[in-house]
Amino acid sequence: MEQEVFNKAKEAKEAARKLSFLSANEKNTALNAMAQALRDNNDYILQENAKDVETGREKGLSRALIDRLSLSPERINDMAAGLEKVSSLDDPVGVVESMWTRPNGLQIGRISTPVGVVGIIYEARPNVTADAAGLCLKTGNAVVLRGGSEAINSNKAVAGVLAGAAGAAGIPSAAVQLIENTDRAAVNYMLKLKDYLDLLIPRGGAGLIRTVVENATVPVIETGVGNCHVYVDNEANLEMARDIIVNAKCQRPGVCNALESVLVHRDIAAAFLPAAAEKLKEAGVEIRGCEQTQKHVSWANLATEEDYSSEFLDLVLSVKVVKDIDEALDHIYEFGTGHSEAIITDSYQKGRRFHREVDAAAVYINASTRFTDGGMFGFGAEIGISTQKLHARGPMGLKELTTSKYIIFGEGQIRE
Amino acid sequence: MEQEVFNKAKEAKEAARKLSFLSANEKNTALNAMAQALRDNNDYILQENAKDVETGREKGLSRALIDRLSLSPERINDMAAGLEKVSSLDDPVGVVESMWTRPNGLQIGRISTPVGVVGIIYEARPNVTADAAGLCLKTGNAVVLRGGSEAINSNKAVAGVLAGAAGAAGIPSAAVQLIENTDRAAVNYMLKLKDYLDLLIPRGGAGLIRTVVENATVPVIETGVGNCHVYVDNEANLEMARDIIVNAKCQRPGVCNALESVLVHRDIAAAFLPAAAEKLKEAGVEIRGCEQTQKHVSWANLATEEDYSSEFLDLVLSVKVVKDIDEALDHIYEFGTGHSEAIITDSYQKGRRFHREVDAAAVYINASTRFTDGGMFGFGAEIGISTQKLHARGPMGLKELTTSKYIIFGEGQIRE
Repeated sequence: MEQEVFNKAKEAKEAARKLSFLSANEKNTALNAMAQALRDNNDYILQENAKDVETGREKGLSRALIDRLSLSPERINDMAAGLEKVSSLDDPVGVVESMWTRPNGLQIGRISTPVGVVGIIYEARPNVTADAAGLCLKTGNAVVLRGGSEAINSNKAVAGVLAGAAGAAGIPSAAVQLIENTDRAAVNYMLKLKDYLDLLIPRGGAGLIRTVVENATVPVIETGVGNCHVYVDNEANLEMARDIIVNAKCQRPGVCNALESVLVHRDIAAAFLPAAAEKLKEAGVEIRGCEQTQKHVSWANLATEEDYSSEFLDLVLSVKVVKDIDEALDHIYEFGTGHSEAIITDSYQKGRRFHREVDAAAVYINASTRFTDGGMFGFGAEIGISTQKLHARGPMGLKELTTSKYIIFGEGQIRE
Repeated sequence: MEQEVFNKAKEAKEAARKLSFLSANEKNTALNAMAQALRDNNDYILQENAKDVETGREKGLSRALIDRLSLSPERINDMAAGLEKVSSLDDPVGVVESMWTRPNGLQIGRISTPVGVVGIIYEARPNVTADAAGLCLKTGNAVVLRGGSEAINSNKAVAGVLAGAAGAAGIPSAAVQLIENTDRAAVNYMLKLKDYLDLLIPRGGAGLIRTVVENATVPVIETGVGNCHVYVDNEANLEMARDIIVNAKCQRPGVCNALESVLVHRDIAAAFLPAAAEKLKEAGVEIRGCEQTQKHVSWANLATEEDYSSEFLDLVLSVKVVKDIDEALDHIYEFGTGHSEAIITDSYQKGRRFHREVDAAAVYINASTRFTDGGMFGFGAEIGISTQKLHARGPMGLKELTTSKYIIFGEGQIRE
């Protein structure tokens, strides 16, 4: 087991040295060839995927998990289209972000470069295999993929097709590596491979992410938990507030940028809560509120401290009536996870305060938290949403998969 | 012990919330007051420092360590001047790095913000106490300082004076915290305080840095090891090459950007090595070279594989004759630590190749590696030189002590 992980990480590192100075044309040609290969191997991939789905059913996986796991011609085409989309984006490598000249004549430039070898540890979605491979190739990184056991046959098929197509297009095929061993021990070993892996990105549930963050010596970018709030100020447009809350809670409740908790200024609680709750009820949302909330929404359950800390990822919403923006800011400081937070207000001053004082990856005035997403931000692609502060914060696009180096042009300068 | 570390980290985190939205004027006023307080307390600080120096002498610390530890009126004035310099720099917080409008009208901006609480773990230099406190305050971060036992009285004096002056200037005095317990266990406990510390920067020897990197769950920025090379190409100006090598090796041999290893193209080895070696010998440098080197420098010792891997931090230099730039690039790939690497050449094409293919924080054409430094790069201040790839690479100035968040301006946008 260790041998497989070690060998593949080592091969990836060797490949990374070459990848780092491929031209954009070479990478884009390979990405398009990889997309075509996915389409050409549609039947093979579906056949391997069917094995996983069957095993999953036998094991009694939930319907939601089976759905995440299942591929279809449409989903395979989506993966291919994703690779083509990535190929169409500007090359994120070799961008001179700034350049200046020192008094001694030294010219110093900061230029973007690949990170090296990126490890992706994920769960049951086989599409992550293609997405991550494409994003890493575009950014000149080698990738070591480690998907969940549920999708192993699908992942082997997809990664094999991609690595083959990349190799045929002149890219080192070791650039895309899949760890076939699905034991937890293989992950634990990966977490410590500091000499071969430059970055780990865990994509999956809270348990997986915690394990990776707590045990890795390889640098990690933490993605995930979003206990997102909307604060409805007393100067809010109440209709706008209602529409944003319904959207942020219901449009896709199972994702990290979905709304989990609403804070309502007490002066507008009576005017706002009954009608807003009605709309939420229609959408099937359970409300867990404070006692004040219950006065306005008779059918609301009583919220516990635990509820205010919860990322429900479901049609459940906690609600609290607050006396002013200060209490809202304190509540968000205490319970927020630094993902996405919104204020609904027409007050210039309170909007500015919210932007300044809330410490989160994305801070909104008068918009749905659901926009915290690489696509919605206009990045063209996304490898995840970082909830940590170092290197990347918020939606991560291609730029976040690069680092930089300084290139210096001299004419013999020495230090006095 | 744990209680002290926990309480101080917790207080720092509370202070950080307020620090994050102080105006530049408030921070700069405090920095200047802190500088003045150091000067006003010159005698007290010297008296406390004398205790450490005396204990150090009793313990038989090396002369170099005693020198690092010792303060003088001049050094105290330097610390004060450093704080004033930092106060004169532009505020790194609140910089809108980019802002754009999406097709749906959402306006999205990326704005720099403090990281939160920064832990600095360092050894015997009391000036780090003032430098780190100043840089962290300027960037709106709280700081938890943990210096070595050798300097504990000096650190308590300096940190106490700074925290008092900051408090008097209206800054939460909990913004500058010093851990007074000097047991190794206090460091180990700090490394895991992920809920209170946002970033750790170890400053010191390789052993300290390794301990921190391998055991911390708090994100770390690794600083330090520099096995720096100069490759003298066959198209080099040999006089320039000699001057750069002598400068990079001898100007200050004990620092991470000092030269450790020279690679010489075989075609110019005979023309270059004897004269260059003569200059190095005059400066007291021991040469450890390959067999080819020994042919040109009779007094050179034979280098081992170990020598090529070593960061000597001393007047010792490893030398290797290589057959071309490819061998030089391979050697740097194998032995380099990704700090600072230089080529001396007049070839446009080889210069470009070196810039592109060498994976290091700073890659030079025709200049000394000694320029890898926040001051020399023009950053105005430096908290260390990162040798890792994430978040910060190379000299870290104020910007590297900040993170960013997205601020979004909407008019009721919801996601379709």
